[in-house]
This record gives sequence, structure tokens and C-alpha cells, in this order.
Amino acid sequence: MSSMEYSKLWLDWRRISDAPDFMKTICAEAHSAQGKAALSELREGFVAMTGDEPAILSECSGACLHMVETDDTGEGYAFSAQGESLRLEGGPRGLLYGAFDLLRGLAVGKRCFNGSAAPRYPLRMLDHWDNMDGSVERGYAGNSFFFEDGRILNGPRIRDYARLLASCGINGCCINNVNVKAEAVRLMTPKHWPALAELARTLEEYGVGLWLSVSFAAPMELGGLETADPMDERVCRWWADTTAALYNAVPNLGGFLVKADSEGRPGPFTYGRTQAEGANMLARALAKQGGKLLWRCFVYNCTQDWRDTRTDRARAQCDHFAPLDGHFDDNVLLQIKNGPVDFQPREPVSPLFGRLERTSSIIEFQIAQEYTGQQKHLCCLIPMFRDILQFRLYHRPGNDRVADTVSAVCAVSNMGRDFNWTGHDLAGANLYGFGRLGWNPDLTAEEIVREYTVLSFGDDPKITETLLPMQLSSRAVYEKYTAPLGIGWMVNPNHHYGPNPDGYEYDRWGTYHRATNTEIGVERGPRGTGYTMQYRLPLSAIYADIDTCPEELLLFFHRLPYTYIMKDGRTLIQRVYDDHFEGCAAAEEFARKWEELEPLLPQDVFERVRLRFDEQCRSAREWRDVINSWFFRRSGIPDVHGREIY
Amino acid sequence: MSSMEYSKLWLDWRRISDAPDFMKTICAEAHSAQGKAALSELREGFVAMTGDEPAILSECSGACLHMVETDDTGEGYAFSAQGESLRLEGGPRGLLYGAFDLLRGLAVGKRCFNGSAAPRYPLRMLDHWDNMDGSVERGYAGNSFFFEDGRILNGPRIRDYARLLASCGINGCCINNVNVKAEAVRLMTPKHWPALAELARTLEEYGVGLWLSVSFAAPMELGGLETADPMDERVCRWWADTTAALYNAVPNLGGFLVKADSEGRPGPFTYGRTQAEGANMLARALAKQGGKLLWRCFVYNCTQDWRDTRTDRARAQCDHFAPLDGHFDDNVLLQIKNGPVDFQPREPVSPLFGRLERTSSIIEFQIAQEYTGQQKHLCCLIPMFRDILQFRLYHRPGNDRVADTVSAVCAVSNMGRDFNWTGHDLAGANLYGFGRLGWNPDLTAEEIVREYTVLSFGDDPKITETLLPMQLSSRAVYEKYTAPLGIGWMVNPNHHYGPNPDGYEYDRWGTYHRATNTEIGVERGPRGTGYTMQYRLPLSAIYADIDTCPEELLLFFHRLPYTYIMKDGRTLIQRVYDDHFEGCAAAEEFARKWEELEPLLPQDVFERVRLRFDEQCRSAREWRDVINSWFFRRSGIPDVHGREIY
Repeated sequence: MSSMEYSKLWLDWRRISDAPDFMKTICAEAHSAQGKAALSELREGFVAMTGDEPAILSECSGACLHMVETDDTGEGYAFSAQGESLRLEGGPRGLLYGAFDLLRGLAVGKRCFNGSAAPRYPLRMLDHWDNMDGSVERGYAGNSFFFEDGRILNGPRIRDYARLLASCGINGCCINNVNVKAEAVRLMTPKHWPALAELARTLEEYGVGLWLSVSFAAPMELGGLETADPMDERVCRWWADTTAALYNAVPNLGGFLVKADSEGRPGPFTYGRTQAEGANMLARALAKQGGKLLWRCFVYNCTQDWRDTRTDRARAQCDHFAPLDGHFDDNVLLQIKNGPVDFQPREPVSPLFGRLERTSSIIEFQIAQEYTGQQKHLCCLIPMFRDILQFRLYHRPGNDRVADTVSAVCAVSNMGRDFNWTGHDLAGANLYGFGRLGWNPDLTAEEIVREYTVLSFGDDPKITETLLPMQLSSRAVYEKYTAPLGIGWMVNPNHHYGPNPDGYEYDRWGTYHRATNTEIGVERGPRGTGYTMQYRLPLSAIYADIDTCPEELLLFFHRLPYTYIMKDGRTLIQRVYDDHFEGCAAAEEFARKWEELEPLLPQDVFERVRLRFDEQCRSAREWRDVINSWFFRRSGIPDVHGREIY
Repeated sequence: MSSMEYSKLWLDWRRISDAPDFMKTICAEAHSAQGKAALSELREGFVAMTGDEPAILSECSGACLHMVETDDTGEGYAFSAQGESLRLEGGPRGLLYGAFDLLRGLAVGKRCFNGSAAPRYPLRMLDHWDNMDGSVERGYAGNSFFFEDGRILNGPRIRDYARLLASCGINGCCINNVNVKAEAVRLMTPKHWPALAELARTLEEYGVGLWLSVSFAAPMELGGLETADPMDERVCRWWADTTAALYNAVPNLGGFLVKADSEGRPGPFTYGRTQAEGANMLARALAKQGGKLLWRCFVYNCTQDWRDTRTDRARAQCDHFAPLDGHFDDNVLLQIKNGPVDFQPREPVSPLFGRLERTSSIIEFQIAQEYTGQQKHLCCLIPMFRDILQFRLYHRPGNDRVADTVSAVCAVSNMGRDFNWTGHDLAGANLYGFGRLGWNPDLTAEEIVREYTVLSFGDDPKITETLLPMQLSSRAVYEKYTAPLGIGWMVNPNHHYGPNPDGYEYDRWGTYHRATNTEIGVERGPRGTGYTMQYRLPLSAIYADIDTCPEELLLFFHRLPYTYIMKDGRTLIQRVYDDHFEGCAAAEEFARKWEELEPLLPQDVFERVRLRFDEQCRSAREWRDVINSWFFRRSGIPDVHGREIY
């Protein structure tokens, strides 16, 4: 591994001790590209795990893995044990997922395979915010591996990228930044078609569909029109023609992702059209080609006057999109961020999920740790993602969880060209876990992180005992030493790393705490901005009432005095102080525990993560001291334990 | 003028009504380049003022301007009236300044010229922070006119630049940024010598010396040495050889300006050497060529931990340099910013001026309005500069003003490629005024600004009556609506435009207000950081005592409760509120008064300035509301007049 330019992440199969007999022989007839890829993965995996090359036969005889390719176009597969043999049956894509399931299972000690499996969602995507100059917006793991100097890349790393995605269940990727600028505008033009088609073929071998972010203003930027009005015939025709030509060159394209009317991006509002009118126009161009449209709901006023206390950014998604339920074409999926604002460490679930009864949606997570430590801090997001997917919306009788409501899942990628792909060696858990949850949102975070840990770092119990609780608690720890109780946003503007309590307070982004010397927060109940009323009952009532509102979201929903008494009898401000001292101490404990693993891990992995923990501890102390000092200086209320506050 | 790429600023001579007879004939023998330039200026000026081409004779007959060039190498000149004739006598440079004095005088209505004049300081410099890629650090008037794409420019604009400098008395310019990076490191290499020599010739014609900022690490960056240690023989030899070769190619170079051990720049501290050891090594290389070294004293800890309350950045200059008094070579001038911190709208005078008895110094002003509205706000700095120059240091009996103490003056340029050179048409006053004060620090701000106003906008009394009080009060107005009472720094980090009260509070730059819910400020008296003790008596006592400390500097020197009672009986916080409402109202009044000048001014000038006032008003309201809200939210103390605070 050391001579490679990049690690294998969890695909670094280790020798196993009690290899089942069927690993000696693979009996397979693989016709499709994916079926062949599955066979190749199994062969390589078995070699790595057993040390022996398996026999590859076309007829069964004795104990073997019997791989049967059907013409099923779906992604499901089935195992059946037959004596010492194991039968794996599925269509091309099914075999791929089955092969990885088998390999992962063997690697984590599973020896009994039986039954069938299929993904919960037909679309499980990774969104890259990669620019064609090679930079990555909100990228914390090096430059893009898709782009360099305006060109599209391909080759072994892309193939290994596709393998990683397939191995954890992801089946789509949007390769370019939703902020479509510069050369990326021209991705739709013939210049880039050959490279796109080639890239799509590499990805397709592992069942990964290629998607593109497109600019709503493309008819002007590329088409020479003076408008991008979705109701203009010429604009419709331009999109239809361009999309047809693009699909002709790149037949298996998944579709388009669009950020419109958002943070300076053009969109239908420019022409007095609704979001539905804008989306449907594009969707119709795609429908003829069998493509889908992912339309982001991240629409809000990003030029708010901080003096304006009536506008509440948290309301924006529902205000804009809930009234349009049922107005979108069938091949549109509304892409909704998990929370109402923007990927903070703690937000309530977006109420918009519970307001769409006749519109398909895709939930957008962010595994790029923009606000959660930027892959310098350990912050495993899988427990949070699972909680969100399991969250009940109460919008219909039964099956009312987010997981039951959305039609697809996606996440903003945390990957880049770094050797370890994700900057922090432990941050691969977020990528792996997102894929696994997208396949099956009922897996527990513990199951998922345990798999990741054993696959990535081996099955020494000391490693799992150390890393599993660390990962599972890491987001709670991060939350403790950063902005408290759901208030969010106390970060440095622009780059979003490190504490800055007033960083966005007098700015135009709609993210205010409005703290005085006695109280803090925005009241979002019925007597405030009314945001709570965007939820269904009983959620709206639970959130509106200070006594029932979950404490971890108290300052998201309510404006409260520092002296407010929490359920355990502490004041709110004492809770803030305690959390910050505890959170920082916990981060220091992470670093200490990591040291104990030195003898059990490759030196390079150990050292990389050690440096990350050094930075996490430094930054956690900075967070602790800035947040505590800011609350203390503002309120004048001392810590009851007399700890050092500046 | 409209077809030019840039305006003439105050050199746009207008027709005068009662032209003296001597303007019809110039009797001159000009031998030197500067003498010829003087003659050319007079000829062009007389044409513009009278409409007639003057006769140029070599022998006097009748009323004439008799220009006599002597071999005086100084910059002085003398007028003597002889009947209807006027005699102007001086060396080459003296004639130049005399010619401009005459032209300026004629243009503002002066008809009687007599007596001699000479500049107070031999060196009056403009420091450009221009980068060779064409950008300007802290530039608010467009890109550099000296550099483009790594090349040195020359041509008519540079010549007109030199004319502007000479016409107000400036005789030197350092053309490149003190942060010497990228291509600028190579300015000392043969590649750039021909262009430098040519540029020096253009400037020299108008008596302007060329200076270069150099990198202390140049022996490593250019010389291939592994050290820049000033005590290393090879380093000394490299500097001596390089400087000699450079002077050979560019003979009339003024010398070097160096920012060492400052904000990440390399310097002698890297090698455990003193600032004197570092400076003297360079000074010796220059001395052989007749060059001077300007050594900046802007040395402080820019990686301070905000939790550290013992380190006081204001002390740094004196702490570093006062003990070295007398240790610098004769051709070294210590370049000292006017205040102890960094060009804030209100700072005390740097105590270092009063601590150098055996070391030459040059005072550094900043007419680039980095912290004073970035040439979007009207902020005339001339009254402040004059107050500083007139400030008594009490370090010796008599002649104890700053003006008597420094050996030279310089200012960070506010110029760029914009049509009007300085971004804001009224900001030219800072450039003009700096030159005039450098020539004679006893001129009053009113005299200077009146000259500038009449020269630039004509002699309509309505214009002068409007603009003169506006200019003279503009910095007080700016001060009122920005950071209060000398506290400074409540600006947005990095770009330094607009309010951000906590912008630098938890950062590493040593600029803290340490405000709580009851008090604000850093105590710099003897019971605090002891900064006041860097002044001589009685200043140290005046500043140390809250009752005698000038109120406008109260929060620079002292930590005080918001309820502190000011001399007029108002609380400190009420003073803050009042100032901000008043300051903002005054800015709005500026804008209103400007509108009245529309019929009297060229449309382009009127419109440009109107747009600037629009932005100033918007920004002043933002300042008012952010600062007031921040103080109110922090203290809980309401405005006694019940005005709107958010």
C-alpha cells in the first residue's frame, strides 16, 4: 500500500483465519460489465483473505461460490447456502452489491450468508463540489480527482473511487460543484463529451451513474440567448436540444442537479416564474432522455438586513416549496438539506419533508465536514444521519419517518486527492456510513461504524473498543465545545473553521443569535417567527413549548435568559460552561486514547491521525475559551465551579 | 480633460482674471533637467492661466519672470519682485519647487511673491504598496501604475505622477510593497535594471528619487545562501556586491526600505541578532553608494494568544527600539508609524519619537485610507497629521515637537490607476496635504485644504464654503460613527472595511477591547500594561490619570465602566450612542451639501463623488447601528433619548 498514491480505505482486505471452503473455487458465468467486476472483486478479495488464488470454473463441482447472473435490472441479490457451497444470484448490479456484501461480511467475521437484499432507495448519490480548476468548494481532503486545469480526469483512481462507492452501496455521483462557474458551464458542450462518456463508462462498470450540475443560465452563457426564462420557447428548445445531444454522446447520464435562485445563482425568480415552472422546464428536456432532475430547495434571502427581525431564514424552504407540492413533474426530485438552515452540527429536521405529499424528494446530507470540524476534528455523523432518517414527521398514519418519505439520499462528498481520500483517516466512516445507511436506513450506527473500523483498521478488539465509542460519541463531543444548544453559526465567516460568536451576527446571511446581556436566541414559536408551525402536530406543539422542546435544540427554537433553569436544575449558562469544559476534555481524551493504539496500527496511519488530534485539541480549547469568555463577558455570570474563563 | 485616461488633479490650471504682467515673458536660462522642467511647467501654466503663450527670452527686457538657475544642490528658492518683473532664483530642484509655488499661488489668487523658501525635511516620501502583478495592498484607487504582469511601467502617466509629487513638495517614492514577495524579490536583479534606470530618469526630472523595498531574506532568495544572518560574512558581501551593482545600473537610487521581523517578514531576530545589527549591515552596503536605509519599526508579536493579557502590542515599538537608541549607523532612518499600533482613526502619538536622541527617524503616515473609510468615505487626514507633527514630546528643552524631532516624513500612498488617481475626488486632499505639510509642517490644515479645493475645483466661494468645513471636519465625523474614544479595531478582519466589534477580539493580532457586560478597554496606565510610562513627563502622567487623559483617547488608555461619567456629565455609553447618531447624521449632511454643488462642478466629478457619499451614508448607518447595538446588547443600558437601537 505504501507505494501507492492513495490508500484502499476499507477495501484493504486482510487475511482471515477461518476461511470457508467455498472461497477456494468460484463458479461463475458473468456476462455483463458489472458481473465481471463482481467476479474480479471476489477473486481479488479471496486472494487477499486466504492467500490463495481461487479456481475459476464455469461448472460447479464440490464446495464453491456459485455466482449466477440473471437479467434482473435491479440492484437486489440473494444468497443461499448449499452445503459447503454458497450461491449468489442477481442481475449485473445485484451481483456487484452481493459480492461486496460477501467480502465485507467475510472480513468482519461473518460466516453464514443467506437471504436476499435490496437497497431501500433506487438513488444513493454523492455530490462533489469540485471545480474544473481542480479546487473543491468546502473540500478538506486535497484537490479534485475528477478535474485538473479545466480537464476531466480518468484512470485507476476513478476506477477505485467507483469501487469504493459500490462497495458501500452508493450508485450515483454528481461530479461538479452546484455553483456552476467558469469552465464547468461548458461541461455540457461537445468539447467535454468524449471525456464525459469515458468517465461514465468507468463509473458504470461499478454501477455508479454520472450526473452533472448545470447552470440555469446556460441558455445565455452557452446558447447565445438573452434570457433564461423557463417560459420562453427558445429557452425550452435550447435545453431540449442540448440535453438530447448530450445524452446522445453520454447515453447513461443520470440527469442534472440544479442550484437555482440560491446564493447568487440565477433561477426562475429572475423571470418572475415559480420554482416549479423552472424545474419542470428542465425536467421535460430530461424526461425525453430518461433523465431525472434534482432541484435544490436551498432558496432563501442571503441579503437579509440584520436589523430585520421578521424574516427567519429557517422558514424559507417551506415558505417557498410547500405551496408547490404536486406542481412538479414526475422526474423531479426536490433536494432538501437535512435541516432547515445549513448543515450545522445540530438542527431540527427540515419541516419540508413532512409537507410534500405529491412530490418526490431526495435528502441531502453533508459528509464534507464544513461546519463539523473540516476533517481535522473527529466528528462521526452517522448517528446523526440515522436519527434524522428515523425521525417521525407525523404527516401520515404509519410509515411517517423521514426514511419512509424521501425517495432518494445524497451527501456532499468529503473526498479529495489526499492519500487517505478524506483528510482524516477516521472520516472515511462518514463516507462508508452514508453509503450503508442509504442502502438500509435501519442499520444501527454502531453496526456501521464497527464494520468500518474492522475493515479499515483490522479486527484487534483493542482497536474496536477504542475507536467505536470514540466515533459514536464524537459528534456529541464536537457539539459540546462548539456553538451551544442548537444556536449554530458561531463560526468564522467564509471558511467556517473555528469560533467566532458574532461572526455572522451583523451580516446578511440570516443567521442571528441576537444575544444581549440577559438573553439569547431567536424565538421561533407562534409568538416569534412562527417557524414551529411549519411542523405537523405533535411536533409543532413539542417544539413551541419550552418545557417539551428537546434541550439540545432549545436555542434553535427559543429566546431564553441565561438564567433559564434546565431540567437538571442547572442554569442555561452553566450548562454552556459545563458543556464546553466537558467537550474539550473529551477531545483531549480522544487524543490520549489514540496514543494507546500506536503499536496496533501502521505508523503512517497513526501519525496522520495523531496530527489531526493535536489540531482538534488546540481548536477545541480555542472553542471552549472563546465561547465561554463570550458568554461570561456578555452576561457577567461566573462559572459556579470557578474554572478559568477569560 | 475628458478624453484623457486620468485627471490632472490640482494641476488643472484655470484661467485667472488679473494676470500680472510678468506672465507674458519668461526670461530663463535652464541648464538642468529639473530647470527645464520648471520652465516647461511655467510656460504651460501661464498659457492655461492667461490664454496666451508667453515669450521665452534669454535676456530680460521689460516685465518678465526672470528664472535664474544657480548651481545650488539644495531644494530652496527665492522670489524677489523687481518692479513689474519677478525674479525666481534657485538650483535645479529649487527652481522646480519655486515654479510650482508660483503657479499654485497665482491660481489661488496670490499676486505678491517675495522671499525665500526651503523644505523643512530633506526627504519627503510616498510609499507605494504596489505588487508587481499590478495589485496594490491596501489600494483603493485601482491597480498599480508602476507595475503590470511582473513588468515595470513608464510613460506619460509616470511623468504626470512625478509632476504631481513635485508640485506639492514630495521628493521620493518607494515603488514596491514593503511585503516583498514573488517577482518583486527580483527587482534587485539585472533583469529589471534597465527599466528601473529608465523609471528613475523619468522621476528625477521632477526631483523625485526612486527607492526600493527589499527583502531581508534576499541573500537566500536570490543569492543562493542558506542564511540571511546579518553577522555572516557571505551575507554582508552579497548585500555589498548586489547593492554596488544595482547602483551602478541605477545611479540615483535613494536607498532601501525594509520591513523586517514584522507580520511574517524575515529579519535579524531569526538569527538572534538585534534590529540594529540587521539594519546596520544593510546600511553599510548602502553607505558606499551614498544610499540611505529606511528601517521600519513596525515590529510586534502578531501571533499573540488573545488570552494573554500581559502582552500589550502598543508597547512593542518602544520596547524593541528605545534601548537601541544610538546603535544605528548614520544613514539609517528608523521609520515609525505615527501611532503605536497601526493607522487607526485615533491613536496617541507614538512614544518612540520621544525616545530617540541619537538616532534619525522618519515618521510614517498613511494616506491610503485603510482604516479611515478606504477612499469611499470622506476622511481628510491633514488636520490629524498636522496635530501629530505639532505634538510636544517633552523629551528636550525647546523644539520638542514631533516636527522638530523627525528627520523626514513619508506616507503610504493612496494612489492608483483610477481616472481620479485616489478613488474619491476629495481624497486628493490627503495626497496634496501630506506633500505640503512635509514641506512645511507649520502650515495650517485650513490653508492647505483651501489651496487644494481652489486648485482642484475652482475658486467659486460656494464651493470653498461647502467643501472646506466638510473636509476639515470629516475625520472627526468618521471617528464619531466608527470605533469610539480611541478603542480602535472594531472593523472586519482582513479587508478592514465596515464594523465588526469582535472582529479581532479572539484573534492573534494584539488588538483587544476585552469588553464585558459592565466595562471595556485595556488599562495601559502604571497599574495596567504600563504603556503610559513610555512617554516623558508630563505626558505619562496626563495619560495615566483618567481625569487628565484626553477624552477622545479615554478607551485607548483606560479600562472603564460604561457608566463612567464624562466631563460634560454624560455617561461613557451615552457618549458612544450620541456620537454615533451625530456622526451618521453629519455624514448624511455631507451628502446633502454635496448635492448643492451640482451646478458648479463638472458632471463626472459631481457624479463620482455623489456615488461615494451614497456608500458613505450606507456604511455610516451600518457602523452606527452595529456599534450602538453591540454596546446596548452588551450593557443592557438604553439610550436616554430612546432612539432606535437594534
